[in-house]
Amino acid sequence: MSKNSVGRDLVLTCFGESHGLCIGAVIDGCPAGLPLTPRDIQTELNKRNPGFTFLSTTRREEDQVEILSGVFNGFTTGAPICLIVKNQDVEPEAYEKIKCKPRPGHADYTAYIKYGGFNDYRGGGQFSGRITVSYVMAGAIAKKLLNMINVEVLAHTVQIGKVKVTKNVSFIDIQKNVYKNAVRCAVPESAALMEKEILKVSEEKDSVGGIIEGIAINVPAGLGEPLFDSLDSEIAKLMFNIPAVKGVEFGVGFKAASLRGSENNDAYTVKEGKIFSLTNNAGGILGGISTGMPIILRVAFKPTSSIFKKQKTVDLTKMEETEIEVMGRHDPCIVPRAVPVVESCLALVIADHAIRAGIIPHVLRVKN
Amino acid sequence: MSKNSVGRDLVLTCFGESHGLCIGAVIDGCPAGLPLTPRDIQTELNKRNPGFTFLSTTRREEDQVEILSGVFNGFTTGAPICLIVKNQDVEPEAYEKIKCKPRPGHADYTAYIKYGGFNDYRGGGQFSGRITVSYVMAGAIAKKLLNMINVEVLAHTVQIGKVKVTKNVSFIDIQKNVYKNAVRCAVPESAALMEKEILKVSEEKDSVGGIIEGIAINVPAGLGEPLFDSLDSEIAKLMFNIPAVKGVEFGVGFKAASLRGSENNDAYTVKEGKIFSLTNNAGGILGGISTGMPIILRVAFKPTSSIFKKQKTVDLTKMEETEIEVMGRHDPCIVPRAVPVVESCLALVIADHAIRAGIIPHVLRVKN
Amino acid sequence: MSKNSVGRDLVLTCFGESHGLCIGAVIDGCPAGLPLTPRDIQTELNKRNPGFTFLSTTRREEDQVEILSGVFNGFTTGAPICLIVKNQDVEPEAYEKIKCKPRPGHADYTAYIKYGGFNDYRGGGQFSGRITVSYVMAGAIAKKLLNMINVEVLAHTVQIGKVKVTKNVSFIDIQKNVYKNAVRCAVPESAALMEKEILKVSEEKDSVGGIIEGIAINVPAGLGEPLFDSLDSEIAKLMFNIPAVKGVEFGVGFKAASLRGSENNDAYTVKEGKIFSLTNNAGGILGGISTGMPIILRVAFKPTSSIFKKQKTVDLTKMEETEIEVMGRHDPCIVPRAVPVVESCLALVIADHAIRAGIIPHVLRVKN
Amino acid sequence: MSKNSVGRDLVLTCFGESHGLCIGAVIDGCPAGLPLTPRDIQTELNKRNPGFTFLSTTRREEDQVEILSGVFNGFTTGAPICLIVKNQDVEPEAYEKIKCKPRPGHADYTAYIKYGGFNDYRGGGQFSGRITVSYVMAGAIAKKLLNMINVEVLAHTVQIGKVKVTKNVSFIDIQKNVYKNAVRCAVPESAALMEKEILKVSEEKDSVGGIIEGIAINVPAGLGEPLFDSLDSEIAKLMFNIPAVKGVEFGVGFKAASLRGSENNDAYTVKEGKIFSLTNNAGGILGGISTGMPIILRVAFKPTSSIFKKQKTVDLTKMEETEIEVMGRHDPCIVPRAVPVVESCLALVIADHAIRAGIIPHVLRVKN
Repeated sequence: MSKNSVGRDLVLTCFGESHGLCIGAVIDGCPAGLPLTPRDIQTELNKRNPGFTFLSTTRREEDQVEILSGVFNGFTTGAPICLIVKNQDVEPEAYEKIKCKPRPGHADYTAYIKYGGFNDYRGGGQFSGRITVSYVMAGAIAKKLLNMINVEVLAHTVQIGKVKVTKNVSFIDIQKNVYKNAVRCAVPESAALMEKEILKVSEEKDSVGGIIEGIAINVPAGLGEPLFDSLDSEIAKLMFNIPAVKGVEFGVGFKAASLRGSENNDAYTVKEGKIFSLTNNAGGILGGISTGMPIILRVAFKPTSSIFKKQKTVDLTKMEETEIEVMGRHDPCIVPRAVPVVESCLALVIADHAIRAGIIPHVLRVKN
Repeated sequence: MSKNSVGRDLVLTCFGESHGLCIGAVIDGCPAGLPLTPRDIQTELNKRNPGFTFLSTTRREEDQVEILSGVFNGFTTGAPICLIVKNQDVEPEAYEKIKCKPRPGHADYTAYIKYGGFNDYRGGGQFSGRITVSYVMAGAIAKKLLNMINVEVLAHTVQIGKVKVTKNVSFIDIQKNVYKNAVRCAVPESAALMEKEILKVSEEKDSVGGIIEGIAINVPAGLGEPLFDSLDSEIAKLMFNIPAVKGVEFGVGFKAASLRGSENNDAYTVKEGKIFSLTNNAGGILGGISTGMPIILRVAFKPTSSIFKKQKTVDLTKMEETEIEVMGRHDPCIVPRAVPVVESCLALVIADHAIRAGIIPHVLRVKN
Repeated sequence: MSKNSVGRDLVLTCFGESHGLCIGAVIDGCPAGLPLTPRDIQTELNKRNPGFTFLSTTRREEDQVEILSGVFNGFTTGAPICLIVKNQDVEPEAYEKIKCKPRPGHADYTAYIKYGGFNDYRGGGQFSGRITVSYVMAGAIAKKLLNMINVEVLAHTVQIGKVKVTKNVSFIDIQKNVYKNAVRCAVPESAALMEKEILKVSEEKDSVGGIIEGIAINVPAGLGEPLFDSLDSEIAKLMFNIPAVKGVEFGVGFKAASLRGSENNDAYTVKEGKIFSLTNNAGGILGGISTGMPIILRVAFKPTSSIFKKQKTVDLTKMEETEIEVMGRHDPCIVPRAVPVVESCLALVIADHAIRAGIIPHVLRVKN
Repeated sequence: MSKNSVGRDLVLTCFGESHGLCIGAVIDGCPAGLPLTPRDIQTELNKRNPGFTFLSTTRREEDQVEILSGVFNGFTTGAPICLIVKNQDVEPEAYEKIKCKPRPGHADYTAYIKYGGFNDYRGGGQFSGRITVSYVMAGAIAKKLLNMINVEVLAHTVQIGKVKVTKNVSFIDIQKNVYKNAVRCAVPESAALMEKEILKVSEEKDSVGGIIEGIAINVPAGLGEPLFDSLDSEIAKLMFNIPAVKGVEFGVGFKAASLRGSENNDAYTVKEGKIFSLTNNAGGILGGISTGMPIILRVAFKPTSSIFKKQKTVDLTKMEETEIEVMGRHDPCIVPRAVPVVESCLALVIADHAIRAGIIPHVLRVKN
């Protein structure tokens, strides 16, 4: 199986590099009969685009999707769907000067070691965050599939640097607010503080990390497979496939470590013939299988590795210490742009499992 | 691919149930020529055994390994290795009374939904923590393989409930101390407090969670595959396959969210012709590939779901609310027993990638 | 993925060696709620057993199945099913003398090269035809699953050496006759000739090959996946995983090469609202997908490699030419015993695809 | 894993349709450091192009390859390589008239059933032989990899209709002659007869099948994995993934059925410290592992399904019998064009296994 493929029944295969011709995705296993237009995908792609220049890279990424295969007369055919976005406005020269100097915090060094120096070092090549364009394109399809069974997936920023969202936010709040501000935060007051924080680090030629929460509602109970295809392990895996992610937790997460069983266990109740739990410390998954409660997870992002401050590094050809000043164009905080990526990854895994469970059928409708 | 298989070149397939005949593991892809005896595996299995009755279940688990295949004249043959441990001292009656009442925090409810009630409900069946016997058996082989390339893997308890290890511990400290106390903690003072904490929750008929840190040293740079077979995502996935895990983080982990790039980036240096980083906030992995620095991660465990306190639940046949008092024998804290499990899982992923990279060859030695 | 695993939704993982402790199979993905007893599997296993000493090995293979996991209260649980057959009456001494002399036609030489001499050479180790015990055990489950959707799978011997079945045989003829004679041939007259042929080669200390035809009826149209998971390619693959198979063809097979399109194309017709084809040269598969017509294939087996005649070989330690007289106990023709194996392999692939297509659901019935 | 992916370490993922925008291939797992230009691939693609209008379709297929990713500065980077060929000269109107009438012998009917009518029916969509463009593009890379270890792969036509190559042909003969004639036959006299045969069936508005032999020389002993990843089973599988293939056999193949063991077994000998066999009835594979002798197989192709003769079929919307006259442009015999396809498929599997065995390393050279 391709190292650049993920999923079992709904499979995403990625290709492309940051400063190559394009970023691409092959999505296999999408049921036949799903109406799909370039606009469906473009809408999601636009969410990860830097619209607010003061908060993000000055690189212009129009990211226009092209459908190369798998769609015929406006519907998916059951054949693999290939989507690409051509790279524009690439500025590879910025990388020529530093190609022997691995940027601290980046994959430059490990890629060099692994590929004997043959890796495309321009902008990180295939290690660039640009690859998440593929995730979002695939996620757009996954979301459309999930809509058919009423599942909704969202993500929102809950922390940027030391600014945290402290009050509870409802799913409706998130839906309403998250894409109204540049930081993708559901709480307007917190959003304002977060924007300020990003501007500040940007002025300091530095960067900052953050935390994104992902939520999926109306997920039917019974999705996920023991042992190794459990829902949480597959969601976590895909989140760690997003560049810059350093931690993932479900439900109460790390806080569970300091709780008692009597505090942490979610008691069951029944209402109108439906079983649910009074609390959701589990984050909607028990034994790797969805409980029917909302799936909730948090994903920690490290600060952008590319900073304009001078940093210590080594020259790989001379094998001696040197310094580096990263040029190019970089987001001082990638968290806002990662919000639709977390959404997409969450949607992909759930849609895959809904197909596996037969809840989303292989042919979606009868053709007239 | 089997849902009960994990790994690519070194593949573990699990079978068995908590109160069935046995717990088993098929390990495929182990290179030929590794000396392997039942004792090699037994030594690791014994580490996960409850030796300290006051801290753990009163269930007697002797867990004697049997090698069914793949070993001939004391060496691995290259054929799949099947290992089993027969279950002893099973007490299934405890579960008959509660088979229609899902235990809060357990997989009882989700298993029932998923398998239409056909799941083996005795002690959680295949969802039981007993399945980690398989992980440890496979981990024993992975560790032996890693020893050949000088990689060492350890884990230790860093938190039980609200008791945390606050001081830094060296790898040597861990090696020296971790299996000297019942809680598998490298700091004797903390260990004492943790034991106390567990005894306390035990008396209260409650349970408590904790955090385990896993460390691997001497891992060569260059292990791990972009994009979806990255080292961190595969390690994280396997950790989430351990029952009760709710969070995983690498290096500084969730703390990275509040750091600046200039604080978080690990600057490179070179010494005696070797490149390394001055800090290791990344936890030994960048771009999904090992950097050569120690791999460090933390795994959060929720408190044992089975508690002796009365809890609210529902009767699945009558579809009405009821109460449950879990009987049977359960650890008030599974963290100490999970320490060798975390070790094993970490070893499995690294060994798999070392084989993939060709660093561990398919035939380990020339036969005379 | 394990090299010793096959299938996607219904996955068979094999372990064990000819003269080791056992031959084993882990079957994962069997839906929950299938009634399953040891007898169900034993019945199929007995079909591959040498009941007629004059035609087959004198090795006594009672092959008693044991169910280690995955079945509870007489029904499958959805968890992996581990089945083993302990090896009895092993006679490894026969192999000690020839361990450095690869038997012509066997895997001895290639196994030695691949595993650096660590392979279990006794009776071919994991390369032995004994491994087909696993296929038949898994096939027994696959057949039970297929029975639920009315699919029936059979195989029969159509050639032994130069003796061929020349007249057409109906599915009912096969059902009625195939297990009535020692050679598993549906035509009694041919069976008699085949038995004679085998006796003759046996007296000559030689062996002989043959051809088995496999047939599946009532297979619903639409099973199989383009491109690489096509039904014919997956059936063919599994047939080539049976030791001694040298050729596989579907429908008219190799004869298609000399036909015209107008002769080979199967014209469609419709009757009582059902579409079918007037001929079935395609063997029930077009574009890798079942047409609804019977699936028909033929599998060519080479003569048993182990013969009692003196043969030229080399001594691997001395690297010089030598001779070998294979001792041990061997079938002069393995074709009769391979009949239930072909059946099992065909059933496995079709059952896997029926699960993939959702025609066999993940939970087979509602539990009371 | 994607149904449209094949291979384990060297993985091909296909996309595209006959009359869509393009045919594409993603090749993952190609080692870094392989020099690769569009011309390398174009050369192979040209071999499958109809240069001889009298023998093949009048559809103009220029098939210009474009490299979308994975190559940087003339070398492979280790990242996935995406290759596409844009479709030109498409004539979809020919298919509008017959879209409800499945062409006998084609996948039209099975695709309709499987995808509920949403399949791209134009020219067979993804079921078209056009998909073999992907195989050949990937095969071009596989061949370059194999060249590094001195393995050479060839194929040649040995039968068209009733015209067979009867005399033995050497590898050198094939190399010299195979691409010199339109039918890709290594024996000039036979080639002339085959051309005549194709012209004749073409005039009769009919089509004809044939047989291709594939050969790989210098394959090191020890490639292939028991049990299910055996070299022969994986080669056979990929051959059955070529549209129109109905049979595959290795070495003496189906003839082995009528041989005695003493005739069929290949005796070993040793010369200048190298072991080989005096005959090669096994076709270079024993126990699923290469013996070091040439790998030889034959692949049977049915006659092209699309013929210009009137044929019986059904109208899928009216569910009644009707007739069809297939228009469009079709080869009266696809065998000549399938020769580079068989070559490519054989090369792909061997290259995959050479990477798996570590004989082709992950980084091919040290970069200066």
